[in-house]
Amino acid sequence: MSRDRAALEALDREDPLRGFRQRFALPEGVLYLDGNSLGALPRAAMARLERTVVEEWGEGLITSWLAADWMEAPRRVGDKIAALIGAGPGEVIVADSTSVNVFKAVTAALSLRPERSVILSETGNFPTDLYMMQGIAAFSGGRVRAEAVAGDAVLGRLGEDVAVLLLTQVHYKTGAVHDMAEMTRAAHAAGALVVWDLSHSAGAIPVDLNGAGADFAVGCGYKFLNGGPGAPAYLFAAQRHHGAAVPVLSGWLGHAEPFAFEDGYRPADGIARFLCGTPPVLGMAALECGVDLMAEADMGALRDKSLRLGRIFMELMETHCGEFGFTLVSPREDARRGSQVSFAHPQGYGIMQALKERGVIGDFRAPDVLRFGLTPLYLRYADMLEAVLQIRAVCETRAWYDPRWKVRAAVT
Amino acid sequence: MSRDRAALEALDREDPLRGFRQRFALPEGVLYLDGNSLGALPRAAMARLERTVVEEWGEGLITSWLAADWMEAPRRVGDKIAALIGAGPGEVIVADSTSVNVFKAVTAALSLRPERSVILSETGNFPTDLYMMQGIAAFSGGRVRAEAVAGDAVLGRLGEDVAVLLLTQVHYKTGAVHDMAEMTRAAHAAGALVVWDLSHSAGAIPVDLNGAGADFAVGCGYKFLNGGPGAPAYLFAAQRHHGAAVPVLSGWLGHAEPFAFEDGYRPADGIARFLCGTPPVLGMAALECGVDLMAEADMGALRDKSLRLGRIFMELMETHCGEFGFTLVSPREDARRGSQVSFAHPQGYGIMQALKERGVIGDFRAPDVLRFGLTPLYLRYADMLEAVLQIRAVCETRAWYDPRWKVRAAVT
Repeated sequence: MSRDRAALEALDREDPLRGFRQRFALPEGVLYLDGNSLGALPRAAMARLERTVVEEWGEGLITSWLAADWMEAPRRVGDKIAALIGAGPGEVIVADSTSVNVFKAVTAALSLRPERSVILSETGNFPTDLYMMQGIAAFSGGRVRAEAVAGDAVLGRLGEDVAVLLLTQVHYKTGAVHDMAEMTRAAHAAGALVVWDLSHSAGAIPVDLNGAGADFAVGCGYKFLNGGPGAPAYLFAAQRHHGAAVPVLSGWLGHAEPFAFEDGYRPADGIARFLCGTPPVLGMAALECGVDLMAEADMGALRDKSLRLGRIFMELMETHCGEFGFTLVSPREDARRGSQVSFAHPQGYGIMQALKERGVIGDFRAPDVLRFGLTPLYLRYADMLEAVLQIRAVCETRAWYDPRWKVRAAVT
Repeated sequence: MSRDRAALEALDREDPLRGFRQRFALPEGVLYLDGNSLGALPRAAMARLERTVVEEWGEGLITSWLAADWMEAPRRVGDKIAALIGAGPGEVIVADSTSVNVFKAVTAALSLRPERSVILSETGNFPTDLYMMQGIAAFSGGRVRAEAVAGDAVLGRLGEDVAVLLLTQVHYKTGAVHDMAEMTRAAHAAGALVVWDLSHSAGAIPVDLNGAGADFAVGCGYKFLNGGPGAPAYLFAAQRHHGAAVPVLSGWLGHAEPFAFEDGYRPADGIARFLCGTPPVLGMAALECGVDLMAEADMGALRDKSLRLGRIFMELMETHCGEFGFTLVSPREDARRGSQVSFAHPQGYGIMQALKERGVIGDFRAPDVLRFGLTPLYLRYADMLEAVLQIRAVCETRAWYDPRWKVRAAVT
């Protein structure tokens, strides 16, 4: 199939998602392939923040907790995210960071499996998932152990001692996708519960938590959901666990009656028990703009475009950069690939630096991975060619040998 | 001393802090006495947020983590808060919510007293402090106990089993101030560590953490620091504890090398180990505006004005509302009072509702407390008279008997 500029521009003209690009404020002269790290700015966000700051905070002051529905925002935005990830109303809450929500979800799952002792994950999982497990284990005083095994050994490791399996659905470095339904089924068959980290899947691929029978999930607001830098994260707890799962981070907003100011903690009914402190109103406002925009997109069309962007990018890399020593790190098979394509290259760091200076922004993950996020809402098919030609230009001129990069690479 | 309007206006003209009021965007026709719950909007915040959103997020995208110093913000804003609370550079970090920081600080303190088992606090402390203690105890599987005793029994309860004393310096309901130096000394003499909650003291009264030899502290960004609704909170850890205190919430940003993406957690040196997830950039930007403004104020002048506002408010309440059945809940003695004055009244809820409809905003805390926050940066002496005359007007007309309030009061 022809992948010249004209053919790609024809695809762009027929793209059912083409209208979304103008809803984002994208900088001139930049080709942004890092929406899997920080999503772009929805144009609606600035007006929304101005309203939140000037009218709600400035004018409404304390009354805005009720008058501007600040108090309901964690549930309201949670319900909107729920619709993107196959969860039901009242099963998702927006709060805290992904890391803190990992802690909440894993400890809640542990409270449902008190007779078991192991939190299992895979080596190379996003570090915060592994680190939070390790913190839980260390604090448990020997009652709980954190264990990570290679991804293909996870199912074999499931056994009577495993309380919780913590997995990231789409791998942050490679973009490889776990089969959520299969892994969840296997974990349940072994008597374990599963916590899914959706940071690289929500808004990137169709997610069906309840279809898979998932127990808990967490995810990030600032990647494919375009919620802004350090946006609040979210937590999913399947309705069937709401009664029995006990929050360890038992803050006042997760109390059954926060404004009764009682001395003793009584968890709220439902998902609200996974709230802890006061909601971050400004971050929540920006996040809601990103989520609202994503909610307008057809997830099937989004997945189709995402996969096609990936196929085209991989093909063009073979055509134009085949001789430069890149190794594909992401799965070639559509069903196993998220919304990013990664390549390994010994000069990966220097190449990515050179690309950035040419306005092509992806990112680098040690030791040698160049990661390109393919965000269907604001990227075009023709952008794939432009990116690949810039990569070729860097490699042809061996621009990565710039001594500045050697120095920088040495300290990475 | 004369407390008529002319005399109060004369005080306002001589007030060394009078220039600060215009730095806040205050709504017309509102007398805001709830800055101890949500501080007012610094005028600088909107421009700052616009820059952060439009330029840093929109234009800079992922590069702003370094180019706009987002990554350093937790430490930078932390150092600015440190200067307000008697801490040194590198001892305060901005992150998460107060509740989550209570968890971090208490568990860090526990890690330094592994042979002791009790977290001690006082009954009636702000609930989130008590609830977080209870969550820690519940998760510890019997190793740790959470115990709260009456405020005047705390020192007597200190003993060989107490690992951590968790106290709020200024009481959220009464405004009563603990003697930080004395309580810390007593706790240390008994071998315990102390975690101070500064939510109602930072920016309200002079705080001298290192002068008192404090171990850990946490506090809220959205009250007297005027950081915006749900602003990020902060955590102080005395330098001497940085090496040994182990974070339980061991997230990736608290790792010694977050971008090495290692599988094993190794805590960062210094205060950075108390970071957990990705910093909330928008909330941090607004908070920094509030903190910068507070940093310009002379803390001595601020305390003088705060106490004088309180004395005048109490005197005027006696003069104009003496016959209406209010009971002073806050300490009359200056040294024992924070920057708020609270009264109990059987019709407290209804009176506060009526005041709000008249544009006088304080707040109500069950069962019967009317709480008036006195924020020296944007309140005037003449405002005290205006507030008291409005309270008198409500009480004279017995406006609280409006049946709507009876209903609302019944469900509070």
